[in-house]
Amino acid sequence: MTTIDAPPRDERFYLDDLRIGQRFTSSTHVVDEAQIMAFARQFDPQPFHLDQEAAKDTLFEGLAASGWHTAAITMRLLVDSGLPLAGGILGAGGEIAWPQPTRPGDALQVESEVLEITPSRSRPDRGLAVVRCLTRNQRNEVVQSLTAKLIVPRRIST
Amino acid sequence: MTTIDAPPRDERFYLDDLRIGQRFTSSTHVVDEAQIMAFARQFDPQPFHLDQEAAKDTLFEGLAASGWHTAAITMRLLVDSGLPLAGGILGAGGEIAWPQPTRPGDALQVESEVLEITPSRSRPDRGLAVVRCLTRNQRNEVVQSLTAKLIVPRRIST
Repeated sequence: MTTIDAPPRDERFYLDDLRIGQRFTSSTHVVDEAQIMAFARQFDPQPFHLDQEAAKDTLFEGLAASGWHTAAITMRLLVDSGLPLAGGILGAGGEIAWPQPTRPGDALQVESEVLEITPSRSRPDRGLAVVRCLTRNQRNEVVQSLTAKLIVPRRIST
Repeated sequence: MTTIDAPPRDERFYLDDLRIGQRFTSSTHVVDEAQIMAFARQFDPQPFHLDQEAAKDTLFEGLAASGWHTAAITMRLLVDSGLPLAGGILGAGGEIAWPQPTRPGDALQVESEVLEITPSRSRPDRGLAVVRCLTRNQRNEVVQSLTAKLIVPRRIST
């Protein structure tokens, strides 16, 4: 993928800076057939992710990216530009869905929205943010919905 | 990863063959530092996934695999040996959690358990299975819990 400089440290958000409803938008990444097949060969070697012809007779009706590839591209977009959190993007887990497959040529972009902010009771240096990250293609269709629980550092009070 | 032959077609399970509580166990994959860093460089370039030294001062207290790398390895183990479903492993989504990080040298294995089986009302050729896939390391610690909604074909009645 194209390397994009991460936002400088002083433009990064601590838990204290986040607001419910706040949105962040990533840059765009174009997925091609070679990327789809390379990921699939390594991690998800099934016909509908590996072979244009074989994929035609499957539920996908054509080559589609592994859902885990869409998830990995989403993560890269979040790290590079989509979610400038001070401690990085530290996920404890979440809910994931792939309403549409990612296809060769798709231009993916992630929009994230802060849903919940919960300071830790036991650890004053951090808290939990729930962020919904929608990955859309160039037709504005959602190819992945991820509601992630993220560990976010707090500003150290002086 | 080591290539493992997928189970032959006639040993694969249709929705009609699945039973609640049924379990499947995958083969094992050993993750090394080079794999962790290669995945991170491509999809999750954060210090705690890229650099042994830099990772020491983070929440992970040492190099750890990206959660999405653990997810991708889990998928490979399921495809190769862990979940012999007739139509392949077609996930609509699910819940994912990473209770422990994956570390260099970890030997990962996936145990899957069928939780729910729901034939489709509108499509007699398929149904939905909910399967919990626990990925464990060699110390039997769960590094990933995935509760996946899978689309599984039915046997064609004659």
